[in-house]
Amino acid sequence: MSSETIAKDANLSFSKLKTLSNEERSQALQEIYNTLKENKSQILQANEIDLKNAETQNLSSSLIKRLDLSKGGKFDSMLQGILDVANLPDPVGKITLAKKLDDGLNLYRVTAPIGVLLIIFESRPEVIANITALAVKSGNSAILKGGKESYQTFKVMSGIVNKALSNTKVPSKAIQLIESREDVADLLNQDKYIDLVIPRGSNELVRHIKSNTKIPVLGHADGICSIYVDSNYDIVKAKRIIVDSKTNYPAGCNAVEQLLINKNIPEEEQREILQTLIDNKVTAHVTPDLKLIESEYVKDAKDDSFDKEYLSFDISVKLVDDADEAIKHINEHSSKHTECIITEDEPTANKFLKSIDSAGIYWNASTRFADGFRRFNELSISIKG
Amino acid sequence: MSSETIAKDANLSFSKLKTLSNEERSQALQEIYNTLKENKSQILQANEIDLKNAETQNLSSSLIKRLDLSKGGKFDSMLQGILDVANLPDPVGKITLAKKLDDGLNLYRVTAPIGVLLIIFESRPEVIANITALAVKSGNSAILKGGKESYQTFKVMSGIVNKALSNTKVPSKAIQLIESREDVADLLNQDKYIDLVIPRGSNELVRHIKSNTKIPVLGHADGICSIYVDSNYDIVKAKRIIVDSKTNYPAGCNAVEQLLINKNIPEEEQREILQTLIDNKVTAHVTPDLKLIESEYVKDAKDDSFDKEYLSFDISVKLVDDADEAIKHINEHSSKHTECIITEDEPTANKFLKSIDSAGIYWNASTRFADGFRRFNELSISIKG
Repeated sequence: MSSETIAKDANLSFSKLKTLSNEERSQALQEIYNTLKENKSQILQANEIDLKNAETQNLSSSLIKRLDLSKGGKFDSMLQGILDVANLPDPVGKITLAKKLDDGLNLYRVTAPIGVLLIIFESRPEVIANITALAVKSGNSAILKGGKESYQTFKVMSGIVNKALSNTKVPSKAIQLIESREDVADLLNQDKYIDLVIPRGSNELVRHIKSNTKIPVLGHADGICSIYVDSNYDIVKAKRIIVDSKTNYPAGCNAVEQLLINKNIPEEEQREILQTLIDNKVTAHVTPDLKLIESEYVKDAKDDSFDKEYLSFDISVKLVDDADEAIKHINEHSSKHTECIITEDEPTANKFLKSIDSAGIYWNASTRFADGFRRFNELSISIKG
Repeated sequence: MSSETIAKDANLSFSKLKTLSNEERSQALQEIYNTLKENKSQILQANEIDLKNAETQNLSSSLIKRLDLSKGGKFDSMLQGILDVANLPDPVGKITLAKKLDDGLNLYRVTAPIGVLLIIFESRPEVIANITALAVKSGNSAILKGGKESYQTFKVMSGIVNKALSNTKVPSKAIQLIESREDVADLLNQDKYIDLVIPRGSNELVRHIKSNTKIPVLGHADGICSIYVDSNYDIVKAKRIIVDSKTNYPAGCNAVEQLLINKNIPEEEQREILQTLIDNKVTAHVTPDLKLIESEYVKDAKDDSFDKEYLSFDISVKLVDDADEAIKHINEHSSKHTECIITEDEPTANKFLKSIDSAGIYWNASTRFADGFRRFNELSISIKG
């Protein structure tokens, strides 16, 4: 099937999907849930082939872990996710503004689906279920293009999802899973039929897509996130937040990469913060005034240290005069993803929240919360002191 | 000054502007209002030079009319517009979602400015005042690039706006008026500093900009707008709405270009609707089944009649079986700008409002309302019968 046919089919299905009621869309999700559940063994068999291929090709263990649907209740939480979305309130048709402009002239702003989404992602096969659920619930058609590592799992799940939809009012072409063989470049040219591209994956993937399509792209490539520690602060909170932001999942784009410490914080507390990083095996790349500890985990910051996404157990650390300098530094050096202030002073927090030009700004919270699927009980960090 | 410097200055100014209070932003608008008012004669003198140049170059009379700031109270309503915007409630910092995610973990969604806007428009010089007011009020920096026809007026107004801002807390580089000499192509490359491009003007301008920048563009090129007349309808309303939508300003992108009439409307009423178009000097390009009147204003629809933006006193007209066929036709042929249904039947109206995939969808209202600045008392249409 050509990319144009795929895109056109998705667009036609959208015309139908957008007229369905919330009940009809949620029922379709229930049907997908049932059908995936019934076919669990078939899906896990396909997944096993992908896993074996990955091992044969000597792919990294973290990639193999992401591929594996059978472990740690991943399959069941994937299924539960579908029901969770089905049970959400209807996101479509909500009146978000109502205004009487004149006698007999009323203006309403009403939420509506976007249209056709092209979602390109990497190895995790459970993403199919997440995206299918969110797309159908919100009345959007989706074309899903997964990574080749999970080809067998995709192929089987794709067939099951389409079979399930054929028993519902949602057109089965509303969700199309494109196998790795199809050419993504052609899909990126279908701006007549596709409304939004959402890439999920590495920097390289996102950058490549951004520079190869005229369709609007919802995505971020870099994640240079910062934490500013104000002088009026709670050191226990600070240490928990910094360690969680750095070590919970350093490869995530919402992991912190730079730490700005107010210079009025007493030197012994500065040392304590650094020691906490060291205790957690984080290498601190510090400016000269912060070389307070001799350790293999303390290194000199370099010229590019504050424009760098480590994605590892590394962090750049520097002193700043005050919140104003921190704000200026962040607006210049951050990738505008997620930033955090640690302070007990509300006016300073409000200034920071208002002045930073990033998508998410946090007050006394880990940058790692910039991830819809993180569960709060995962926040268990062991910190000395 | 290089385009990069202009864009960088706008970005730096934004960092300051976004921290200002609503009062500080509104005061700056008051200052701009005062200064423009004081310098009225200087501005009108410059405007006269532009007008003379336009006449010398034999530009069209409609263009010259758009250029002229001195007639019909245009200058004063331009000034009043600034105060109207200043007095609006603060659009920044509004909490649009507040949610307690967990104990001590609160999520807020807060309205924030976009950043740096690049606004490219054609001849109307009063646009400077409109955009400056809206940008400053909403905390955004703006780079304005006007057409060469109003060069003298722009130059003078630019100086006045910057002088006015220098007496306020808003950085004067927050609003930069770029004269025609600067190269817009260079500005379109400043994606590091510019967040959004808004082109206002002809199809050609918008298309050119869309295909020459990686910065997101807020704009629409075509305006193929439709009206569907349902069988359960009020003929007087229908005639008023159709005539206003077509004749109020046919060159506008929100003028109607195609009319879909339910085939169950009695033939004599179909004839009455066509006659109303003829009485208003509108040429109807009709399908064979609608050749009900012999007139120089009634012509045969051609193959491309329903994919055409006339921008003149012309309209394509066809019969449809029902609302479903109208919806299908519109979703296929419209440019997704503005569509209208004329019906007294609420379920049919709701179906239409939900199924059409366009930016604005109207129920018993002229498509010409898709324009923020239209005043309701302008709606005075003379219709026979």
